[in-house]
Amino acid sequence: MADTAPNSWESRADTYSLYGFTDLPSVHARGAVVVTHGKGPYIYDTHGREYLDANSGLWNMVAGFDHPGLTETAKAQYDRLPGYHAFFGRMSDQTVMLSEKLVEVSPFEKGRVFYTNSGSEANDTMVKILWFLHAAEGKPQRRKILTRWNGYHGVTAVSASMTGKPYNSVFGLPLPGFIHLGCPHYWRFGQPGETEAQFTARLAAELEATIIKEGPDTIAGFFAEPVMGAGGVIPPSSGYFHAVVPILRKYGIPIISDEVICGFGRTGNTWGCETYDFVPDAIISSKNLTAGYFPMGAVILGDELARRVQAAAEAIEEFPHGFTASGHPVGCAIALKAIDVVMNEGLAQNVRELTPHFEAGLARLAEHPNIGEWRGKGFMGALEAVRDKATRTPFDGSLSVSERIANACTDTGLICRPLGQSIVLCPPFIITREQMDEMFEKLETALKRVFDEVA
Amino acid sequence: MADTAPNSWESRADTYSLYGFTDLPSVHARGAVVVTHGKGPYIYDTHGREYLDANSGLWNMVAGFDHPGLTETAKAQYDRLPGYHAFFGRMSDQTVMLSEKLVEVSPFEKGRVFYTNSGSEANDTMVKILWFLHAAEGKPQRRKILTRWNGYHGVTAVSASMTGKPYNSVFGLPLPGFIHLGCPHYWRFGQPGETEAQFTARLAAELEATIIKEGPDTIAGFFAEPVMGAGGVIPPSSGYFHAVVPILRKYGIPIISDEVICGFGRTGNTWGCETYDFVPDAIISSKNLTAGYFPMGAVILGDELARRVQAAAEAIEEFPHGFTASGHPVGCAIALKAIDVVMNEGLAQNVRELTPHFEAGLARLAEHPNIGEWRGKGFMGALEAVRDKATRTPFDGSLSVSERIANACTDTGLICRPLGQSIVLCPPFIITREQMDEMFEKLETALKRVFDEVA
Repeated sequence: MADTAPNSWESRADTYSLYGFTDLPSVHARGAVVVTHGKGPYIYDTHGREYLDANSGLWNMVAGFDHPGLTETAKAQYDRLPGYHAFFGRMSDQTVMLSEKLVEVSPFEKGRVFYTNSGSEANDTMVKILWFLHAAEGKPQRRKILTRWNGYHGVTAVSASMTGKPYNSVFGLPLPGFIHLGCPHYWRFGQPGETEAQFTARLAAELEATIIKEGPDTIAGFFAEPVMGAGGVIPPSSGYFHAVVPILRKYGIPIISDEVICGFGRTGNTWGCETYDFVPDAIISSKNLTAGYFPMGAVILGDELARRVQAAAEAIEEFPHGFTASGHPVGCAIALKAIDVVMNEGLAQNVRELTPHFEAGLARLAEHPNIGEWRGKGFMGALEAVRDKATRTPFDGSLSVSERIANACTDTGLICRPLGQSIVLCPPFIITREQMDEMFEKLETALKRVFDEVA
Repeated sequence: MADTAPNSWESRADTYSLYGFTDLPSVHARGAVVVTHGKGPYIYDTHGREYLDANSGLWNMVAGFDHPGLTETAKAQYDRLPGYHAFFGRMSDQTVMLSEKLVEVSPFEKGRVFYTNSGSEANDTMVKILWFLHAAEGKPQRRKILTRWNGYHGVTAVSASMTGKPYNSVFGLPLPGFIHLGCPHYWRFGQPGETEAQFTARLAAELEATIIKEGPDTIAGFFAEPVMGAGGVIPPSSGYFHAVVPILRKYGIPIISDEVICGFGRTGNTWGCETYDFVPDAIISSKNLTAGYFPMGAVILGDELARRVQAAAEAIEEFPHGFTASGHPVGCAIALKAIDVVMNEGLAQNVRELTPHFEAGLARLAEHPNIGEWRGKGFMGALEAVRDKATRTPFDGSLSVSERIANACTDTGLICRPLGQSIVLCPPFIITREQMDEMFEKLETALKRVFDEVA
């Protein structure tokens, strides 16, 4: 129940917020959850309630909410240099060190880094880089961007145009020239009688037909998350990247791996493109890059793109783009530490070790007659609610089943995320086996309660 | 001279950076300046060189580079809650308090706040809010955005489309539907024999003619910086806002004040719109909002827009927009402190007290035969270099006069910014009278050196 006293935290939040990505009926009925502090994977609200955050904040707080190494690093950098930019050939020492480190841990031998404040800005920047590059190389008509339905790439007008979600129509988006290919979700979009291999081949054929129809020389680039995140945790169908990458290579279309969610360990490897065995031309990074302790995004250009873009910039003596806080020294110091913590202090290792336990828990809950499938990769998982398991028929949208499950979870002290009719789990990398068991127990209680109500 | 040893900071910066907004010939010749720490208005590089930063970082480090109140606030919040988002009706207590504070210090009686990570994202978000609002109110054709030549609103594809700078053509921008009106710079764009009042009236007439030509019902909103910043510090011509605001009101076009640079004290008042005596429908804030100690932007909707946008969101049960780090608790804690520091700890007061001294310094340097005009407001100032003062003829672009002046300043331990053929000064609010004298002395030395070379 919402606390409606005028000076309550809930009322103050309601009065002054334009809530984003928030189910307004839920927040009106229940009140905002106002968070005060955290401990490990738990957060606490103004009423002292404890929640296990199986959402890792927004996929990003992978080291939990009080990691001493990260907070000490942030504090030390605030004492040293609490802000600077990266314009005019000036930048902080932390920025130089992070760029070097990002190229070192990337799949690229060499490369160049451009900083932003978010994944949205990084994708938006990458589009501008491609438009700039193609125009400089005499092909200004190469402006169309290929992404996939259910792909999520951000919320600036351009990155929202890349995002393949129907809600963007309320803004009159996508803008022209943003083309969405089929979503590689076999369980949902496979046709009757179609094998997974046939499904993948059909998507590859759709890609090639689209390229030919639009004209290869009108396409600026192809962006894909290795595992779709905010689309509802959708690993690609079997063989998907092995099928589409050669087609993109054949037509000379740059391949951008949006690693905002997958990057730095979420799928069990440093990069999602490693997990699916392809090498892109550039990587988009954010979220885990700073473990959520600072807003930061990065475009990491692989060697070939870096050389071409640099040559285009040299020709006009400047690359006229940059954000005020691009390469902020505190963010860079935190990112350097976060990469070290995830890769060398057991977090990535914990993801790999507990993934079988995570998958077993998802598989067990998927035995429920109202769970159509479980899917996932590494520490990304989803359970898809269905009214009828055999026919894969979803619940009526007006029932808001996944919202109700998420709200029921909140009541039991668990935060998970409703996405379409699925419930998404993406625990922090520091979660223990016992905390994972607590997560599944609480989710099971909530699922039972809601399915009993709607059955 | 650039240090080209392979392990030098300069070489490492060169190898891994895609430099943004950087004159590449200068950085190749001179090497990057790699910044390690700061003290008051001074920064220090890896060679131990000291620079007085008359640029305030990028207009934003108004409290200097080691403000104890701000660093202590940041550190305390890192110990309390080092990260959270503002989705799904959850947000940190700091976020709630900052929204309340922003509405309190805004020109609005009531309002709602939406957070981003930058001014670019805030302008991009405001465009999406307007597109969303007009479509929800049955006018989906209201999509065109009015801004001015030399206005600067950011670098996402949409905010760069709003920015009225020729360099955006290298990206194939602006996108269609972004319309640039005349720049209110009387000295440069006034016609022979035209008084300043006539010039202002001409711009107002151009605005109304544009609205009528495009169709009032196709225009989503008008965005303006009270004083243009990255356009080269251009205060509006006399009476400009008093002339254009009634026209915009007559046609029901929302007025957005982009206060990314002017906001929180730069022009001598809290907001630039106060300085020019108009009340907008919404405010875009960033930079000074956190004194540069954290990446943050905010859209502050005034009461009427807030009510209409909220109603539109309620109708579809969600406003489907948001950035992962929107309302980050550390950023919000820092912003609360920065507002207090600027408004209540003497910084805004210092701007008001030293503005006459600042203006006198600019005026004195403008006596040089190669300075065409000085201009400014509060702690924003510019000197415009000219080959011929009487005819206002600029130097040949190939001479890169302003770049040379800025480089000569760097050699003397002063950082200022070349913008077109002007040199911009925007000192931090903590600067003392003595430091301001040092700034002008160093600049005078550099001006003399470069003008002697090119004369």
